[in-house]
This record gives sequence, structure tokens and C-alpha cells, in this order.
Amino acid sequence: MNKKYVYLFTEGDATMRNLLGGKGANLSEMIKLGLPVPEGFTVTTEACTRFYADGKKIAPEINSEILEALNVIEERAGKKFGDVNDPFLVSVRSGARASMPGMMDTILNLGLNDETVVGLAKLTNNPRFAYDSYRRFIMMFADVVMGIDKSNFDAIFDARKAEKGITDDADLTAEDMEYISNAFLTRYKELKGDIFPQDPKDQLLKSVAAVFRSWDNPRANTYRRLHGIPYEWGTAVNVQTMVFGNMGDDCGTGVAFSRNPATGEKELFGEYLFNAQGEDVVAGVRTPKPISELKKENKAIYEQFEEIANNLEHHYKDMQDLEFTIERDKLYILQTRSGKRTAQAALKIAIDFVNEGLLTKKEALMMVDPHQLDQLLHPTFDEAALKKAEPIGKGLAASPGAAYGRVAFTAEHAQEMAKNNAEPVVLVRVETSPEDIEGMVVASGILTARGGMTSHAAVVARGMGTCCVAGADNLVINEEKGFFTINGHKFNEGDYISLDGSTGLVYGEKIATVEAVVSGDFATLMAWADEYKALEIRTNADNPRDAKVARDFGATGIGLCRTEHMFFEADRIKAVREMIVAKSAQEREVSLAKILPIQRQDFIELYEVMDGLPVTIRYLDPPLHEFLPHNDNDIKALAKDLNIPYQELKETVDSLHEINPMLGHRGVRLSVTYPEIAVMQTKAVIEAAIEVAKRGIKVHPEIMIPLVGEVRELTYVKDFVVKTADELIKNSGLNIAYSVGTMIEIPRATLLADEIAKEAEFFSFGTNDLTQMGFGFSRDDAQKFLDDYYERRIFEFDPFAHIDEKGIGKLMEMAVSLGREANPDVDLGICGEHGGDPRSVTFCHNIGLDYVSCSPFRVPIAKLAAAQANIKNPR
Amino acid sequence: MNKKYVYLFTEGDATMRNLLGGKGANLSEMIKLGLPVPEGFTVTTEACTRFYADGKKIAPEINSEILEALNVIEERAGKKFGDVNDPFLVSVRSGARASMPGMMDTILNLGLNDETVVGLAKLTNNPRFAYDSYRRFIMMFADVVMGIDKSNFDAIFDARKAEKGITDDADLTAEDMEYISNAFLTRYKELKGDIFPQDPKDQLLKSVAAVFRSWDNPRANTYRRLHGIPYEWGTAVNVQTMVFGNMGDDCGTGVAFSRNPATGEKELFGEYLFNAQGEDVVAGVRTPKPISELKKENKAIYEQFEEIANNLEHHYKDMQDLEFTIERDKLYILQTRSGKRTAQAALKIAIDFVNEGLLTKKEALMMVDPHQLDQLLHPTFDEAALKKAEPIGKGLAASPGAAYGRVAFTAEHAQEMAKNNAEPVVLVRVETSPEDIEGMVVASGILTARGGMTSHAAVVARGMGTCCVAGADNLVINEEKGFFTINGHKFNEGDYISLDGSTGLVYGEKIATVEAVVSGDFATLMAWADEYKALEIRTNADNPRDAKVARDFGATGIGLCRTEHMFFEADRIKAVREMIVAKSAQEREVSLAKILPIQRQDFIELYEVMDGLPVTIRYLDPPLHEFLPHNDNDIKALAKDLNIPYQELKETVDSLHEINPMLGHRGVRLSVTYPEIAVMQTKAVIEAAIEVAKRGIKVHPEIMIPLVGEVRELTYVKDFVVKTADELIKNSGLNIAYSVGTMIEIPRATLLADEIAKEAEFFSFGTNDLTQMGFGFSRDDAQKFLDDYYERRIFEFDPFAHIDEKGIGKLMEMAVSLGREANPDVDLGICGEHGGDPRSVTFCHNIGLDYVSCSPFRVPIAKLAAAQANIKNPR
Repeated sequence: MNKKYVYLFTEGDATMRNLLGGKGANLSEMIKLGLPVPEGFTVTTEACTRFYADGKKIAPEINSEILEALNVIEERAGKKFGDVNDPFLVSVRSGARASMPGMMDTILNLGLNDETVVGLAKLTNNPRFAYDSYRRFIMMFADVVMGIDKSNFDAIFDARKAEKGITDDADLTAEDMEYISNAFLTRYKELKGDIFPQDPKDQLLKSVAAVFRSWDNPRANTYRRLHGIPYEWGTAVNVQTMVFGNMGDDCGTGVAFSRNPATGEKELFGEYLFNAQGEDVVAGVRTPKPISELKKENKAIYEQFEEIANNLEHHYKDMQDLEFTIERDKLYILQTRSGKRTAQAALKIAIDFVNEGLLTKKEALMMVDPHQLDQLLHPTFDEAALKKAEPIGKGLAASPGAAYGRVAFTAEHAQEMAKNNAEPVVLVRVETSPEDIEGMVVASGILTARGGMTSHAAVVARGMGTCCVAGADNLVINEEKGFFTINGHKFNEGDYISLDGSTGLVYGEKIATVEAVVSGDFATLMAWADEYKALEIRTNADNPRDAKVARDFGATGIGLCRTEHMFFEADRIKAVREMIVAKSAQEREVSLAKILPIQRQDFIELYEVMDGLPVTIRYLDPPLHEFLPHNDNDIKALAKDLNIPYQELKETVDSLHEINPMLGHRGVRLSVTYPEIAVMQTKAVIEAAIEVAKRGIKVHPEIMIPLVGEVRELTYVKDFVVKTADELIKNSGLNIAYSVGTMIEIPRATLLADEIAKEAEFFSFGTNDLTQMGFGFSRDDAQKFLDDYYERRIFEFDPFAHIDEKGIGKLMEMAVSLGREANPDVDLGICGEHGGDPRSVTFCHNIGLDYVSCSPFRVPIAKLAAAQANIKNPR
Repeated sequence: MNKKYVYLFTEGDATMRNLLGGKGANLSEMIKLGLPVPEGFTVTTEACTRFYADGKKIAPEINSEILEALNVIEERAGKKFGDVNDPFLVSVRSGARASMPGMMDTILNLGLNDETVVGLAKLTNNPRFAYDSYRRFIMMFADVVMGIDKSNFDAIFDARKAEKGITDDADLTAEDMEYISNAFLTRYKELKGDIFPQDPKDQLLKSVAAVFRSWDNPRANTYRRLHGIPYEWGTAVNVQTMVFGNMGDDCGTGVAFSRNPATGEKELFGEYLFNAQGEDVVAGVRTPKPISELKKENKAIYEQFEEIANNLEHHYKDMQDLEFTIERDKLYILQTRSGKRTAQAALKIAIDFVNEGLLTKKEALMMVDPHQLDQLLHPTFDEAALKKAEPIGKGLAASPGAAYGRVAFTAEHAQEMAKNNAEPVVLVRVETSPEDIEGMVVASGILTARGGMTSHAAVVARGMGTCCVAGADNLVINEEKGFFTINGHKFNEGDYISLDGSTGLVYGEKIATVEAVVSGDFATLMAWADEYKALEIRTNADNPRDAKVARDFGATGIGLCRTEHMFFEADRIKAVREMIVAKSAQEREVSLAKILPIQRQDFIELYEVMDGLPVTIRYLDPPLHEFLPHNDNDIKALAKDLNIPYQELKETVDSLHEINPMLGHRGVRLSVTYPEIAVMQTKAVIEAAIEVAKRGIKVHPEIMIPLVGEVRELTYVKDFVVKTADELIKNSGLNIAYSVGTMIEIPRATLLADEIAKEAEFFSFGTNDLTQMGFGFSRDDAQKFLDDYYERRIFEFDPFAHIDEKGIGKLMEMAVSLGREANPDVDLGICGEHGGDPRSVTFCHNIGLDYVSCSPFRVPIAKLAAAQANIKNPR
């Protein structure tokens, strides 16, 4: 049997999402539910894959299937493509498995040509509508199918408005629309050297192909990479009978959520416009009315819509995002999908659904995207600083959180500024479009002059958890000259502003931000997550402040305390440097003796915060040259400070120079060469434990030796570490338990994990280094070519963001199984940055780790991800 | 049953080498054969292991076993330890599984004390002999057991000689010897605060422990590392009844080989001294007589010895190295072992043994150490240059080959000079000792003032294949002032000299050397190796000269042609740099067009040499910054040369800077970013193939893409490589076969080799990078800490010298099995430097590779190693 590439909406249902895409599957499902959905058909995602396999051509048999399906829906509609009296018109839209809003292309009003437009005008007795529809179609087709820049047409449109002295599109007459349509056709012919395609079937097949091509456009590729959507999935294409919101004042179009996507409140939330087509609402060209107005303007339609929204929410067990059109007082639903929402809303909805009896706790946990929790943990303004600040403007509170940064007017500038400066950037745009996505990613805040809560800027910013103020009043941007004004204040590119995405206020200065405190719904969800997760969640923290934050977020231990950060602090860096330039172990010990009490105090403070929980302390890791200056003036100053000849210090610096520092003298290699450093660190760890134990604080230090690649490295170092520790404990007369383990971050260590597990009480995967060495590229240097790799689809995601499961993950799995076999008691964890990435947490759960350790603000995210992993694949 | 730690010689045999060590096993075997060997016993290697396990103490039960064995041999000798009338004396010597000449310690004449020395004098009626023996014993015991520097005693000895105006030791009288013995005892007491141990059993047990300790001395550790001898093996200790070569003129001692160890001639070859103890011959203190003299001086003894040597050679099927002592006209054999020999001798002996019917060809192949072939391939002087040179001195031709270099007087200086200079070093010493081993390793030649063909310098240099002239006449060294004189010529440290190790001539200037040509026995052995090997041997060659050498040595293809070496050549480096600073693909193509004809010509010349054989060409591998200058002046000059602003070039240089270049933008990553470079290289490869094919030359280019870690990298690059190649071939109308493969050198590639094998026609393991990334240290940077690793026995060998089989080898095995499973036709090879290392070649054979590729001069070595691997473990 041949593969079927085209399905009528009446043939599908919601389970066929992979084949029909989200939009197609939901349209089918809604028809099944008896909802008012215009007829149509879906060209499958497999047709898209086939399209690329065939060299970006639609195979003849697929074209035939499309035309057959067209016949069916023509018959059902009782209309015909190209019928000059009553032309059949369709929309052509993309619809992938995962929602990718605005990333791919849409064409409306397809089927219009020079003859059918006349018929449509007569039939509807509404030439303005007919030519408005035609000019829209010409422009969309020219843009999407033929690659003609929209600006060519915008110029014509704007010129006509100027000529007529009109500012509002609604004031354009039927004659204006006809004039514009004709001018578009002329411009099209000038640019393409051929007339605008007149055969509706030709228009249709070309449009389907164009939507398939749009799967591979740069903004779609970027979006997929950011959201981890595989290229192989492809998109489906939905061809649907047109209904018209722009046929007159008894027509309209809108989008609405079944609950408030910002707060989670149980209320319809959305916007609509009368006499408009869908793009008008989303694009922010006209400012739409809130959905609540519809209740006053057309109660019956509002109530019908409200009921549908409720039913769909129950049906899908999720908050829905709907598109609708009203054609001559009749309501049509054009799309339903899970609504994007803020983290706050996500929590409220999940918990409300459980309270409403719609979901179990497990289902509710699965409903919240762990990444989103990040939003809840985002900064707010420092209250004291805020009190002194005066807002200079206001817009919509489009995405919560507070941010300050330097103004950038384009995505490119934002990227450059983010790359070159430590200071954050605020992207300021008239409105954003999918082309801006890369700049939005690097921005700490986004401010737009136009568009509502469902505008591109608002939707995308909420998805990314970036603070956003949209549609700010009186904001005028002069991108070319590099400044903007708002209510009489003027700002240049590079100036500081601050945004409050939760109030919509804009400030003309830098306002300090403070970290979030969470409670309520958040605490409820975290408690549920604790109930269902199997992994223990620890944190990476080097100081009491971070440890406290993490513990408050529910971390049950420190999985990584990097001691080198302690070495850099002002009160000890001199002693550290003395230690490095020491000429013998004896001299080194003199300097180490100065560091010991300070480091001991570091640990005492950490233990105090982590009372009762394990604290994993990693011994000195970076190469020693990192602690020394490298330019001549600094070396001279340090030589003076240390009271040694410049030449001698210069020689030390030179001798420590490494060609590939990442592959240099670091980690356990330092402890092998300078055992006295590890001895000092052991004294600090154990003496601190003894000290706090006397005060009744429970502590379990875990000494972690980094960068082990050969068991004898560990054996050698462990030997004197244990000797030092045991003697201190014996002399104290106390019973202090501690363990000694290792990081697994060298590929060779994963291969010989059985040998290592016999010596190590725990393994902690250092997936940053393991990724770097396993792939053979350093994170810093790889940035130069990774973009080329994404662009050429060699990589689909950043292996530093998500564990590369089939490569690096294979090494981890080997280490887990070798390690456990040799030592069933070995405790297994991860402390690379992947420990806070939900996808990687799932992987860690699946390969049987005992814990993940991540930065404090990722603890809730990791916890939820761990619960989800255990719900999907219970231990 | 308790483990037995002590074996009488009469209890062992040659099969017990692992337990008894080589010396012990052979002593037992000789007793079994009825040869005149003094009775004794062996303390096993397991006792040594136990000694270290017990914290460097001999367990009481082992001490008891030693004393029991002592009783037996006392009884058999009819003498008693400590008997003042007829004292029983023994020697205590080390003897490991593998011969480690001079690396560990020996004590002779043990059992003497203040009383027994008097008894011995009376009994032998030879007080000079008795006190000579005593003073030797005191010094050896003090040195080996108590760690007292020999110089303390040498000073006393030399002072006495000076006082008496004596230059030859033989002129010292009995009184002198007694005086010296007493002075030694006094000095001993001064230094140790206690009298010299008088109880012979106490002396014995302390000496056995000292020999065990010497297993762990620095020179033994270095030797083991150089020869790949595991630390775990431990050494045995042999305690043997003393026989005396220093009892008078009817006594003597000597060492001899059953065949000439320099040439392989079938003749006894060795040296002896009358009235001497063994160390006098070896240490080079007195100049011994050639063994042929013995025939004149004592025909009976000579003939007896000759017969024994012959019998042992037949018995062991190998050339023997014997030690003997004549005590009052009676011959004793004190040791036999396989004799070290030059490569030339090794070949001749192996082939003669086959011709004599002693060995099969397979056995003969197994008998030659592949490393040794290197010697045969060593340089000789350029004849023209030699003609103009006048020798300034002469010594013994101790180890063949020719060398020039700068003079270094100490091992330390030699190491420093070798590290800091591209120029070779010649080590010039009065005599060498095991402490000099590290300096000898780095020297290209060794010149000594004292010592014969069996002196330390000669033996070690032959083993390493380093040119050596020993015992040079009139060579006077003033190490302190840093000069030497020879026949009126004076040379300072750092001056050039040249040595001919095959003639013994010394030259006071730098004489150019030329490469070796081999034939005769070498060709015979290579033909046999070809018969028995399974691996194909290819070569790493980037130019026709190297390719020619390798082909002459029997390479059957180029396994690695590094194209970047070509990029550095003077006629193209400017175009290469233009290419790098180009601002667009178009600009880059202009520069590449200049490089294309030059690179094409490179390949044409290679193909001409390799007619009929495969040529594997690796595409550009190093990061581009390697081709640009880095200091300001050079950048300025280049900017001028390229006619671009300095600032622009500086920015390019800076932007190409990498933090970890090894993990940077290189290998296939360059081809992904700059496909035009790989396209140019493909054109050069294929156009050159077409060009030579027209002239009837058969060529099979193999295009090798380096640094692949993800199959899509390969797919992406292969796509345009194949497109480019196929089009050129199609246009040529010729039938040119080529293949496209990859290096496997990234750990991740080994894990996903199944995916890669579906796209690659061959894999070539790049074990240098694989070792660096697998271990997580770069070769350059690791040198700083690897010495610590050897010293602490964390590593026992250099993983860049031999493949780390259990770690990196495991990755290779995975890649082999995944690759073959996915693509049974995939051709598997290795082109890292390990490809020329016999141990690694064996590993490559065992894991089923198809070929190894190594530098031209390693080809014969790899070939022999491959034959041996296949004989041991046939495919």
C-alpha cells in the first residue's frame, strides 16, 4: 500500500499529532467534537520529509492527493476553485508537531485572481472586502512563495494612505483597495518579470511547497535549536476553507486563552478586532479590544465561544489558546492549542486543575515546564533603589520580572553588546518579529512601542522568561539616528534604562535588582515534586549566601563547592601567590599555613548553613597560572608586593604557561605534584568539621578529587588525605564521618570506572569537561564554529546545554555500570552545568544516578524535572 | 601450605624465571646441566613483592627460610659463616625477570669481619687478597646497605696510593690493603656512629633487604620505564658461595659472549683480568685483556669455557653473555644470560642460527627485538664531508652509527641542552654510570675516556642504538672548568664534535650525516617478516623524498600525508596567508586558486613515487592561526607584504587566537566553515591523479577527513568533496578510483563509529589526539607533570610512546567492533606515532586493524613487530 500523505480534517484526530502536526490534529479533533470548524485537509509531516528527500520538490503523487482532497472540500462547500461567480478560497498554514508560533509562513485568501476577485465583490456585494482580501493575498503569496520583500508592497500601501491623507486603514475605500491590488500586481510583474499566478491550483501547490520550505528558514532553525525541536520532524500544512473576518462590521477575528496566561486566573483572556483578518490582531498593526468587550458587543457569540473554550479545556485537560473568526455573525474556531503561559500562571493552572478534579497531582506535575520555573526565580527591583526612581513611561506588563541594561535598537546590536560587555542589554523595538529572536535571547529585557499581550514580543518573552514591557505609550524610536524618546525623555543607544515586566513601568536609569522569593503555588508544586522524584537535588555553592538560597529552594546538600573561588578572594590571594612562587615544599607550606585558617573558616560557614546535609568539597582544580598576573606591569607590581625580583616572578609565570590549559597541570595533577596543597585543604575541611561538630552541627564532608583519569592518581592522593584526616579526627576524640570520591570528567575515567570505584566512595560526573574532552573542543573556542554547525544542521543543540546522550551519555552509562558493578555502594551524581537542565536531569534519572547538583536557582527546576522523569519512568 | 620464598639453586630451573629472576633461574639451570657453578640459593621475586607490601621489611619467616638455605650451602661447602679459621663467604646479587644490567646492587665477599679476615689471610696465606676482599666488602656494604657515598672510601684509597706514589692498584701491598681496610672501618664508624656490622648473618639479612630496596631506586625506575618493565615484577636476590678471582695470579675474572655482540661473528668475544674481582672488568677501572689472550695464557681453561659457551648457546638457542671466575686454575661460571647485541649482530645471529639448523624462521623472527632495527637505519657520515675531516682521536667502536652534536659534560647538561636546542648533543664522560641514563637517552652520541666494549657506556649505548666511542685514548676531561682535551685539541662545553661509533674515530667538528642503506641480512629478515605478518605497513610521508625512503624500506602505501606541511612551504605561504585574511568566500577562493597548482604538483610528485600503491591524504588540520605570525613586528611586516592595514591584520590574528588550540577550530571544523579549502584540496588530489594516470601511473588517492566527532560533519564535507571529485573524473573520461574516510581521534567518534562507518570507507586511528583527549592532557603541557607521575608510579610508561591499551585501547576496540559491524568493508588503520612502536603494533594486530602507518625509518620495525604479533597470535 502506498503511504497516505494527505488527510481530510474529518479523517484525523488529536492522537495523530506526529503525522498531522499540532494544528492539523486539533482541527480534526474539534470537528470530531462537533465544533464549528471550517472544512479542510492536512498535508502530513511525512510529506515534508519526503519534500526535502526529493530535493525540495513535492512528488507528483502527493500533488495528486492534495488536489483530490481539494475536490472533496470543494464539494462539501458546494463551491469551486476559480469559479468566477462564487470562488472557493482557502488558507494555507504550517503546523508542526510542536508549536512554533510565527516561525513559519501562512497564506490567506488563496484562490483569488483577477477574475474571482470581481466575482467575490459581486457575490458579497462588498468590493472593499474583496480587494482588501486580494491585496493581502498578493502580498502574502509574493512574500512567502516568491521571496519578494514585503516592503515593496508596504510602500505602495503607505503611499496611497499618504496621498489620501488617511492614517487608519479602515478609512481606505473599495476603490483604494482595488487601486492598491492593481498596483501590487504591477509591482509583482516588474519584480518577477511575469504576471501574478492566476490558476488557483497552481497557487495552492506552490504555497504548500513554500510552507514546507519555511521549515528550513533561519528563524525556524534558531527557534528549533532553542527549544530542542528536531529538524527531522518536519511540518505539516493545513489547507482550510476561508472564513472572513474582514467582510464587514458583523465580521471579526480574535485570539483568546481559556484562562489568563499571565496570572492563571479562571477567565477568558484575549483580544479581537471587528472587520479584520487574523494577522491584524497578532501583528500589532491595529490595537485590538479585550475579549471582555465582546460580551457587550455580541453576547451570544461571546457565550458560545466561552462554552467552546471551557469544553476544549476539559477535553484537553489544559488551558487552551484559541483563534476564532466571526463571519456574518457566525463563529468559527480556526485553531486550538495548549496556551503559552507565565510560570506563575502555569503553577496556578496546574494546581487549580487538581483542585477542580480535572487532573491528578502526577498529571499536574507533568503539565508544568521545568524551564518556566526560572521566571519565578527572576529578579525584582531592589526596593530601596526603586523608591528613589521615577518611572518615565508605561506599557503593557507583558512578561514578568525586572531588568536593567543598556539600550540596543537592533537584534544585531544587542548581540554585539552582549558579547562585548558584562553589562546587560535591553532591546528596544517598535515591534519585534521572528527575525529578532537572537537579539531577544541575549537581552535581559525587551521594550516595544506597539503590540498587545499576544504580540510577538510578549509571547516570546514570556516563553523565555525574559522581562518585557510591550506597546509602551509615546515611545518613539529613531533607529537610524540611534535614539528613542518617551514622554519628553531622550535616550541614546548604550544608555541605561530599567523595565518592570510585572507592572509595565519603564525607568530611565539603572535600578539594582534583587533575587526572587517564592511561596504559595510554588511551594505546593515543589512539595508534590518532592513526593514523586527519585533523584536527590543538591546544589553547586561556594559560599554561605548561595548555599542558603539553595537550601531555601529545597537543595538537600552541596554537590560541588569549588575551592578555587575561595583562593581568589582578597584576604588570601597574596598568600596563594606566595605559595605558587615558592621554591620548595617547605616554602610552600609556610604560605599554605597562612591560607589554612581562612579556608577553615570558609568551610565552617558553609557547614553552619548546611547543618545536617552533605557538603561535597572539590579540591583545587585550575592550573596555578590562573592565579598569577600575565601582563608585565601586573607582574612588576606583584614582584614588588611579594618582595621577589621581577625576573624571577616573570620566569615563574612563563614556566607555568600552558599551550592548552584545559589539558594542563590541573585537578588531581596538582595534588600529585604538590601534595601539601591537598594536605592543607584536608586540614581545613576536617578541622572545620570538628569545630562545628563541637557546637552540635551535623556535618558530612565529602572530599572530591577532580580530573582523575587513572585510579592510581586517586589512590596516591587519597592515601595522604585519609592519613591527614584520620589523625585530626582521632586527636579530636569526636566521631566525624567523611568520604573521599572523585569527579568523573576525563573520558578515560569512564572507561576504567570499575577500577576507580574500588577506591572512590562517590563519583560526580563533571559533564562540562567530559563534553569538552569527549567532543574534542573547548567551550570557549567552539563558539567560533558552533554557529556554522547549527546552520549546517551538523548539531541540533548545544552539547553544553543538554547532555549529548548518545556520545557523552554513552560514556556516562559505561561509568555507571562499571562503577556499580565494582562497588555497589558507590554514590553517583553529576555536578556539571547540565545538572540544572531538565532534559539532562531526565537522562541522569534514567541512567540511575543518585543525585544531581546544580546552581541554586536551578534547584526547583531540577526538582520538577526529576519528578517528571520518575513519573515517566519510575525507579 | 605456606608459600616458599627461598629456593636452592639445586631446586630450580630455567622455566622458573618469573619466580627466581633471570639470573637465579639460569644458575639453577646450569647446575642441572652439570656446569661448574658455585652453590647458592635464590630469594624469590615474590619475597620482594612481600617486602614492599610489608612496608619495606623482610618478614621473619622469610628470614628463617634464608638462614635455613644458608645452612644447607654451608654444609655442602663444608664451611661455616663466621668461622675464624675457614670462613664461609658469599655474594649477594639482584636478578630480576628481565635483565637490568647495573641498575641494582651487588655485594661481594660477605661474611668477612675483623676476625674472619685474619683467618682468611692465614688460610690462603695471602693477606693481600684477604684485606683486598675486606676493603671491597666494607665499601660495597656501606654504599649499598647503609647509603654511605663511595667517595668517602675512594678518597682514602686514592690518598694511600698518592702517599705511596703508586698509580696501579696492583702495586698496593698487603699492608696497604690492611691499612685501607682499617681506615674504611674508622670512616664508617665516624659516619654512622656505630661499628661496622660484625655478625655475618646480620650482614646477610641486611644485604638482601638492601637489594630489594634497590629495585625502587631512581635509576632502576628510569630503566624500567624506558624498557617497559612493570614495577610489580620485583627482583629476586641470589646468594652464592664466593669464588675468588683476586686470590693471586692463578685467579681471574671475566665476561664473554658466545658470539661477537657487535658483528654477530661466531667467535668468543669478551675480556678478562687476572687477580681481580668482577666489578674491575665491568667498571672500566682497569683495562682488561681480550678473551682471545686467555687461549695463550691458559689453553685448558679457555677450551673448557669455549665448550660451555657453545653448549649453553645450543641449550638456550640464543647467543649467551657469560660471567666467569677462575679461582686457583679452576673455572666457575657465575652467570649466563641472553647477550645484548647490536642490531647487525642480532640479524646475523638470527639468520646464522636458522642456517645452522638451530632455529626455524619463525623462531628467528621472534629473536630480534624490533626496536633494535633502528640502529641499522641510523645515519653515517656524509662521505664528502668526511673526506675533508681529520680525526683528532680514537677510542673503541662501542656502538655503531655516526653522530655530531654539542659537547655536554653531565647528564643534566645534556638534558637541558637537548630541551632548549634543536641541535643534537654528544655526552662526554670519563666513564658513564647508571645515574647518567637520562642524559644518555637524549644524547645522539656518547664519548668516554675509560672502559671497554663491555663497559656501562658501551652496553647501554648499544641497547639504545646510540652511537658510542668508549675508552678514547688521551681524552682528559675537566668537568668542573667545562672543557676536555684530546691529543692537544681543546673543546669547551657547547662546542661541536662528531663520533663514528663504527670506527671509534673522534672528530673536532660538525660532520653532516646521511641516512642508512640496508641490505643483506636485513633484507633476508624483512622478507621473512613479510612472509609472516598480517598487517599492512604504510608510511607517514608528506614529500617524495620521505615516500621514497619508506617505499625502499618496504612500505606498501602512504597512510598519512599531512597537507599542512605543504602549506608552510615558502612558495605558497603568502597565498595561504592571503587566504586566511580573506574577508569572504570569494576572496578566499582567489587565494586558493593560487595554491591549487602548487598543491596539485605536490601530489603529482607523491603519486609518481608511490605508483601502484594507495596514498592517504589528510585535509588541512591545524587551526589557521598557526599560519600567521604572532608578534607585533612580524604582523607589521606581513601586513605590508599583504598590502593590508596593520590594524586589520592584528584583529584577524587576535580573532583567531584560541585558548586551547588543540580543542579549537581545526580539522573537519575548518572544512565545515570554509568548504572552499576542502574543495581546493579535492581538486588538487584528483587533478593530480588524472594527470599521472594519463602517464600510466596507477594511483589510488584516499581522502582523509580529520577530527570527525559526529557523522554529520563527515557527511557534510564528503558531499561536496565527492561532488567535486566526481565531476573532475567524469570530465577527464578516465576511470580514477578514490575513497573518502576519516581519522578516528576524537573520543566521541569511537563511541559512534557505527554511524561514521556507514559514511567512511576507511578509519585511521589518530592515537596522538585520541590519547590527549582520552587522558585529558596535552602532550606538551603534560611533560611538566609526567615525571612526577613516573616517580610516584602512577604511570609506568609514556602513553604517547605506547598505546594505553586498557583505556585508549578500549576506545579503539569499541570503534573497531562498532565500525566493522556497521560496515564490514571499512578499512582500518592507525597513523599516530604509535604506528611505529612495536608494542602498539602488536596491539593493533590483536584488535584486528588492517594496517599501521609510521614514519619511514620505523617501517622495518613495524614490519618485524607485525610479523612477531602474527606469529604469537595468528589471524
